[in-house]
Amino acid sequence: MNDNRPAARRVSIRDIASAAGVSVTTVSHSLNGKGRVLPDTRARVLALAEELGYTANPHAQRLATGRHMTIAVQISGVGRKALVTDSAYFVDVLNSVSATALDHGYTAVLAAPDMGPRDIETFAVDGAIVIDPTGTEPLLQALSARGAPVVTTGRVLRDGVALSSVDNDLRKAATRVLDHFLEAGYERPAILTGPITRSYAADTLAAYEEWTAAHGIEPISVPARSGMSAAAAISAAEALLSHEPRPDAVYAMLDVLALATLHVARQRGLSVPGDLGIAGAVDSDGLRWADPPLTALNLHPARIGREAVELLTAVLADPVQAHRSVTVPTRLIPRASTARRG
Amino acid sequence: MNDNRPAARRVSIRDIASAAGVSVTTVSHSLNGKGRVLPDTRARVLALAEELGYTANPHAQRLATGRHMTIAVQISGVGRKALVTDSAYFVDVLNSVSATALDHGYTAVLAAPDMGPRDIETFAVDGAIVIDPTGTEPLLQALSARGAPVVTTGRVLRDGVALSSVDNDLRKAATRVLDHFLEAGYERPAILTGPITRSYAADTLAAYEEWTAAHGIEPISVPARSGMSAAAAISAAEALLSHEPRPDAVYAMLDVLALATLHVARQRGLSVPGDLGIAGAVDSDGLRWADPPLTALNLHPARIGREAVELLTAVLADPVQAHRSVTVPTRLIPRASTARRG
Repeated sequence: MNDNRPAARRVSIRDIASAAGVSVTTVSHSLNGKGRVLPDTRARVLALAEELGYTANPHAQRLATGRHMTIAVQISGVGRKALVTDSAYFVDVLNSVSATALDHGYTAVLAAPDMGPRDIETFAVDGAIVIDPTGTEPLLQALSARGAPVVTTGRVLRDGVALSSVDNDLRKAATRVLDHFLEAGYERPAILTGPITRSYAADTLAAYEEWTAAHGIEPISVPARSGMSAAAAISAAEALLSHEPRPDAVYAMLDVLALATLHVARQRGLSVPGDLGIAGAVDSDGLRWADPPLTALNLHPARIGREAVELLTAVLADPVQAHRSVTVPTRLIPRASTARRG
Repeated sequence: MNDNRPAARRVSIRDIASAAGVSVTTVSHSLNGKGRVLPDTRARVLALAEELGYTANPHAQRLATGRHMTIAVQISGVGRKALVTDSAYFVDVLNSVSATALDHGYTAVLAAPDMGPRDIETFAVDGAIVIDPTGTEPLLQALSARGAPVVTTGRVLRDGVALSSVDNDLRKAATRVLDHFLEAGYERPAILTGPITRSYAADTLAAYEEWTAAHGIEPISVPARSGMSAAAAISAAEALLSHEPRPDAVYAMLDVLALATLHVARQRGLSVPGDLGIAGAVDSDGLRWADPPLTALNLHPARIGREAVELLTAVLADPVQAHRSVTVPTRLIPRASTARRG
């Protein structure tokens, strides 16, 4: 099927005009149903167009309409030159973005944050969704500069960047998890976050500091160097469990951090939930199938992706829109990893 | 930053020509350094272009050059309207494709197999990498039809589709795992594959049937309805462990299938590795961190992604290329899940 030959030259409307003995304008009007063309002429042009295998030049068409029917999606913190991370949360957001975009007639394409400036300048997309932005993303800035809409999941914390966004109330969610630890008999909960330039980590840290202050508990937190890499997750979990006094419960922001904590606890002979309670901020098969199964939050990532596309397509349909913030609810799923009191 | 206004009208070379009092051709020649233009005139044009904020129209430019510097990548079996799957193997292939493409000056964008026919027709990419193809993918067929190169990871099994591909020798790998089971004292190894329309499943099944025949062992295999979904993985693992006589070892093709097998074994009170040995065809943090850690193959997914991009960019640089098949080596990593004989 693919013999790598260059495609044969595309049949142009000039070719049809020449074959039909009419002007290029007549062919154009016949094809797009506009202008005044005699019915017989139009029928003859359409028959010839089909016979010659004419298809519209998509690039020229898009040049004319200025609409690509494509949106970009990007995971801001995914790491150098990468596209995606092995985390159920991001996968669920992305797949929901894809499905919702297709339902709206758009194709969503995932692009690396490290795509070059020239590629961004020529990126044939109508808008973008940036997941966990810092606000300094070249794609976000380039699209904003050319007036193309950008929606974020998670919020930009920097001043001067106002974008529509979809988020959970992660302060409330963190407080819920910490209260759950306390109810189960844990006394020194710690948190394991991603880099605090992201709103999810900043929100959780703020809630944690407020909660520990209110309960007179010494705060213990370790931000992983990266929210994504297994090596960074293991070393963050090791640092946290080496803290004196040792925390007796850990709230981990990403599934890889929760599973790494369980792994390090097991290596050190700590029993879960007896010696250590573990809760993750994002649920996944890995957490459900762990031994013991890990307590987690359902952040409804599929709904986050869907809401982000709804916001973006609303602006694409009608650019005069106020910025909107959508808050998606969260739900705590208690499992054996925090069942110290059975 | 983003106030969702339509962009101001772009400054055209016509505007520059008018401001400079020269022809459009002179502006064009001045900007692209071609043709004969007096040095003073060229300097004046460039200064005006900068002053007016001229940037080349990327769509018009690409229309002229016919090159997008973008390649598509697609996971064929990812599921309805989805983009990506929560599996370390695919994530590693994708991130390596992205990084290698950027190193070659290309941006790789991940696209859903369910993107519409019109979106494919107008998809501004120079070529594509299709992961685990069936050969019937609309993107693969459309690009092939227009003479754009397509490279696959895994092979198309259908007749009449000849494409360059990167693959492991999965028959040899399966035989290696089955021999490992036998050496460890297991007598009834079974296999848990993905849909056998994919070459990875067909290769493994073929090797398994040959191996069981050679050893006089009754073959037991269950193809999961989907290689991707957790629910499908659990029900396939349940079916396999309900088989009479019960297999005493399972070779699972994807990480989700291996972890689902461990989960179901635990639910049924089967000890691993005592009652059941488990080996996975694709390694991941989940397998490494499982209790017990699961034996797995390293298929070198990052190398698969890199080789695929090298093949694709070689054809893009010089279309007259023979089809190539690249075989990436595999390595067995024995862990506790198959250590029946210590």
